[in-house]
Formats: sequence, structure tokens, C-alpha cells
Amino acid sequence: MNLKQIIATHSKEAYEIYVPHISVDTVIFGFNGDRLKVLLLKMKFTPQWFLPGGYMKKDENLHTAAIRILREKTQLDDIFLQEFAVFSDLNRSEEAFKDFADNLWHKQRFISVGYYALVNYKNVSLKADHLSESCNWIFWDDLEKMDIAMDHKKIIETALLTLRKQISYQPIGLNLLPEKFTLSELQKLYEVILGRPLNRGNFYRKIKNIGILQKLNEQRKGGAHKAPDLYTFDRENYFRILQNGISNW
Amino acid sequence: MNLKQIIATHSKEAYEIYVPHISVDTVIFGFNGDRLKVLLLKMKFTPQWFLPGGYMKKDENLHTAAIRILREKTQLDDIFLQEFAVFSDLNRSEEAFKDFADNLWHKQRFISVGYYALVNYKNVSLKADHLSESCNWIFWDDLEKMDIAMDHKKIIETALLTLRKQISYQPIGLNLLPEKFTLSELQKLYEVILGRPLNRGNFYRKIKNIGILQKLNEQRKGGAHKAPDLYTFDRENYFRILQNGISNW
Repeated sequence: MNLKQIIATHSKEAYEIYVPHISVDTVIFGFNGDRLKVLLLKMKFTPQWFLPGGYMKKDENLHTAAIRILREKTQLDDIFLQEFAVFSDLNRSEEAFKDFADNLWHKQRFISVGYYALVNYKNVSLKADHLSESCNWIFWDDLEKMDIAMDHKKIIETALLTLRKQISYQPIGLNLLPEKFTLSELQKLYEVILGRPLNRGNFYRKIKNIGILQKLNEQRKGGAHKAPDLYTFDRENYFRILQNGISNW
Repeated sequence: MNLKQIIATHSKEAYEIYVPHISVDTVIFGFNGDRLKVLLLKMKFTPQWFLPGGYMKKDENLHTAAIRILREKTQLDDIFLQEFAVFSDLNRSEEAFKDFADNLWHKQRFISVGYYALVNYKNVSLKADHLSESCNWIFWDDLEKMDIAMDHKKIIETALLTLRKQISYQPIGLNLLPEKFTLSELQKLYEVILGRPLNRGNFYRKIKNIGILQKLNEQRKGGAHKAPDLYTFDRENYFRILQNGISNW
């Protein structure tokens, strides 16, 4: 089958399986101690890059759909996905399949529900699906020069803005840092997300006040300086505060 | 026309006008210096109460739809609505119209996008629409004993939880407080939303640090105590920080 045939077959199935007009896009941020990356798919039928996305089955809710879509498109599993916004502008997606037949599933109007996650990209193996050539981690700074489809650039930027706001009231770091980490490694994560350096003393004081850290009786050996203390997350507090939010009042 | 006929007519029009499977619900919190209220509609055809809600027209995006729906159902206009979550569970709404014909627009599966706003309920006049008996401000504490339709109670609770998190990183108060207010009036607003008392000294210090307040050269006269200073919002800073978020880092 050529690509047009594959997509036409997919379209026919889609009408049977999915709820129309509703799609899901996932923004997966990768971090491994240094720089921020975003997961994108290079599609076979266009020079453009896409977020991993798909549709909601008739027997799914959106969250179940988002988890399944991410697994199918990238083999990523067991990821904490967070809904962050809905994208509903007219003509946001209709144009992308303009060379195809009008009754193609993909050409209808979709509103897309955005989910994001933050993962350590060293821990994951990726595999593209049947419509995509490859599935790649793209450095944040390289996004600007890429040809990104539809409103997916806006979706990515909105996800980062949301993440920046949310780290003011939600803990992050679990699954991104090693089991045992130093405060300066945690600070680096915050700096990468915020896109600016932080004052060390202020950061240490504030992060300790949240109550998610447990100081270990161990130090990170081997550096030129005084061996820094190691910490781990207090998981019980971490998940409680993730649920309720960090109150600044 | 009886109610079944009104609804059947509405259903036929709906298929022409709206995008299927997508609805909008608005949670409008009211405050006038003392207690929190929520705006609900008492429908004609059931003993239950509903949030003001509706559907997205084929030529609208969700935000435009939400503003129109709120205006049509309640006459509330010029409200700052904020999207906060999507509700997509199976059978969340299908049951509500079970006594009606199967092809009724209202009986299809809907995912609902939630918007919330916070308004001073003294400044608004309400008017119910053709399907609702009345449109009322309900005290937060009275919601528990009310018969609320579908998953609208969950939608209301999620809105309040979101609002509680968001006041950690977004300013609130504009349009809720008089043009000139005391810090203790602003503190009361935060206490009502958070549902707990706050330490005065801490609150004053933190709220001043955000940089949205302008101290006036005036005092509120007439109380038994020393006349407290009056403040107003620095609108330029307020909107900038509303956009970017209050950074706690």
C-alpha cells in the first residue's frame, strides 16, 4: 500500500473506533541533568514534525486515550501525564490534510486536548508508529528552526509556560533525577525549566521548606570541592503535595 | 409548546449549529467581601440544578463559546473566564436525558470543557434562559445538600481546587474588591477561597512582595481602631503578573 492508501484505510477504521472532533496531543519534555528536549515525530507524508497525538476511542476517557496514544506512538509507558489546555481555534488542523479526500477522518475539525509530561530521556526507548519515519528528542533551542505542523508549536510553548507556572505550586523531580541527588542537581532542573539562573541560598531554603526532601546520611564523593550532601524525595509527602499543591499562603 | 417539544425543537437546531460531542460548563464563583457563592440554574424539566453550560458553534472556538453561553444563560457579560479542566468520563451526561428520544442531541456523549470565573455578585444581574426556571447564587456551604445534575458537583469542586492552587501563582482581587481596599479586606478574600484563616503578618509581607499593590495616601475612616491604609491594584503590574505568573523561585 502507498501512503494515501494507508491513510484512507486508517480513516475508515477511525470512524468506527473514535469519537469525532476530539483529539489529544502530548508534549513530552525530556531532561537528563542538563538541557531540555521535546519529543517529536517526523511523519512520512510531509516534511513536517508533529507531537505524538491521536484520538479518543468510544469506550475511553481522555486520560486513558492520552496514555494509550503515547504508548502506541513512542513505546513510552507508565508516564505521569497532566492535562494542561484545550486548543480549539478554527482551521487549526483542517489544512494539514488538504491534499486528501474531503471525507477523510483527519480533515474534520478537531479540538485538541493537550497533555504534558516530564521524563528522564535516558530511561526510555522510542519506536515510531506506521505513519512516522522516526521519533526524536529535539533540543528546546533547536525547535525554532524546525518546520512544526499545524499549531503544535503553540501547544509546545503553552505546555512549557504551564510547567513554569506549575513548579511554583507543584513538586517536580521524581523520575527525572537519580534516586539520590544533590541540591545543586535539583536546582539545575528548576533552572532549565525556568530558563534562568536561581540564587543558590534562596533556592535551598525554599525547596527545603516544601517538605518533600529527605536528607541522607551520605555525601556525593569525588568532586574537587567539599562532598555535597545527598537527598532523596520523601514519596509520601511528595504525592500528597502534588495532589494538594504547595501553598504559598 | 410543552417542555418535550421545546427540547425536541432545540435538538434539531443543535445538529445544525454546533460541533457534536463537545460541551462547555462554566463555574462562576461569587464574592462580595464575606462568603463564597456559586451560580447554578434550576432547570424546568427536572428537580436538579445545573451549571450554566452549552455547546460550541461550528464557527466558534471554545473560549468564544464559553463567553456567549454565560451571557445567554445568565446575562453575565465581560467576565474573565479561565479554562481549568476537561471532563470526559463515559456516561457522565448521557443519563440526564434518558426519558427522551435516542436521537436527541443532548443524549450523545459529550466531553465538557470547564471554565471558571470569580465575580463580585453585587455587580451583576441575572436572568434565566428558556429551559431554566431560575438562576441563583448558592452559598458554597449549601451545595452539599442540593441535588446537582450529572458530574457538575465534581466540576465545581475541581474548579475550586484549581482556584486554590492558582492563587499561589496568579494575582486575584481585581473586580472583586472595591477600587480602594484595605489589606484586611484582601486577606479575607484569600481566606474565603482557601477555606482557612491566614496569619496577618505573613500575608501582608507576601502580598506586598508580589508587586501588584499601590499604597494610597488615604485611610479607611470610621472604625473603632486606628484607620487602616487604603490600597489599589497597580493594573499594569497586575496584568503582567497574571500573564507570566508569580514566580516563587
